[in-house]
Amino acid sequence: MSLRLPIAVSARHAHLAQRTIDLLFGPGYQLRPRTWLSQTGQFAAEESVTVIGPRGRLEHVRLMGPPRAHDQIEVSRTDELDLGIDAPVRMSGDLAGTPGVTLEGPSGCAQLTSGLISARRHIHASPEDAARLGIRDGETVAVRVDSEGRDLTFGDVTVRVAPDYRLELHLDTDEANAAGVESGSTAELIRPRHRA
Amino acid sequence: MSLRLPIAVSARHAHLAQRTIDLLFGPGYQLRPRTWLSQTGQFAAEESVTVIGPRGRLEHVRLMGPPRAHDQIEVSRTDELDLGIDAPVRMSGDLAGTPGVTLEGPSGCAQLTSGLISARRHIHASPEDAARLGIRDGETVAVRVDSEGRDLTFGDVTVRVAPDYRLELHLDTDEANAAGVESGSTAELIRPRHRA
Repeated sequence: MSLRLPIAVSARHAHLAQRTIDLLFGPGYQLRPRTWLSQTGQFAAEESVTVIGPRGRLEHVRLMGPPRAHDQIEVSRTDELDLGIDAPVRMSGDLAGTPGVTLEGPSGCAQLTSGLISARRHIHASPEDAARLGIRDGETVAVRVDSEGRDLTFGDVTVRVAPDYRLELHLDTDEANAAGVESGSTAELIRPRHRA
Repeated sequence: MSLRLPIAVSARHAHLAQRTIDLLFGPGYQLRPRTWLSQTGQFAAEESVTVIGPRGRLEHVRLMGPPRAHDQIEVSRTDELDLGIDAPVRMSGDLAGTPGVTLEGPSGCAQLTSGLISARRHIHASPEDAARLGIRDGETVAVRVDSEGRDLTFGDVTVRVAPDYRLELHLDTDEANAAGVESGSTAELIRPRHRA
């Protein structure tokens, strides 16, 4: 039984509501799919925006589609320091009390009042993969990365199980860089009963 | 017996040879100390330079003093990706085969043929602290960080023991951000006999 997990590194990106897309790109603007993600039905769009904070700007931040009910901008901690905004580590969709940020697009700006997060690391798994690996939706596990000179064990990894999920460990760029890995590298699941 | 280690986060910085300082700031230029480091005799200088790679630039990269025999520019993996240069993870001073980079100062530029590294994480300890903690110069240990939502265990941590060293775990910004810690946070040493 394999406990290897493929790693997917998430660069900074944004999921926006249609009303925000309207402000940035013009009324009724439709995002154009560029690449379809491994998780069914979502895509990286051709469009990008500039994210602006009190200290600095992040150019070419990729948009994801389709539009969502709420704006969510996912950046690394390094990005937060560049922007000058302190955002919490959160799972996708958990946006209560998160800070806002300014977005700039080709047709205008949008002042968001919330939505900036640093994504909590997590595993996506189908029910079949979860059963094979002995992990359950919502639990916290650890994963080990064996890399050249940057071995690392990540705790606080949340498991998310859904029928349309492909097995992947999602890390942000700070986490991948600290571990010396990139998309396509693998990590080893440390099952709860093996944890110290 | 305490196994807690104070964390010091190293932002990108450069140690330069005097001949390189001459090219960037003018012949015979003396770096001006700004803050003295916890490790005896070294200082962060008032001066900074721009580091230039094929893909991008890093502005305001702090210089350290006093000058060294060889140029050494320490950046994070995130910085390498921004510069467009793939540099190895190395201990300070281990510069064989490292890539060069272009530096820009107020009086000119310098094309370095080597010296760009990503610093290998390490512990500085005095002989007394090393004895108390049960660690030896040159060995590799692991340290655990317990932070809000980003627990992490770093492997591949090299121990450096010297009389003028103050006890510190040195991490770069990617590592600190992945663990959700900053300078002044602490880590827990996992002694070799406790390792899995």
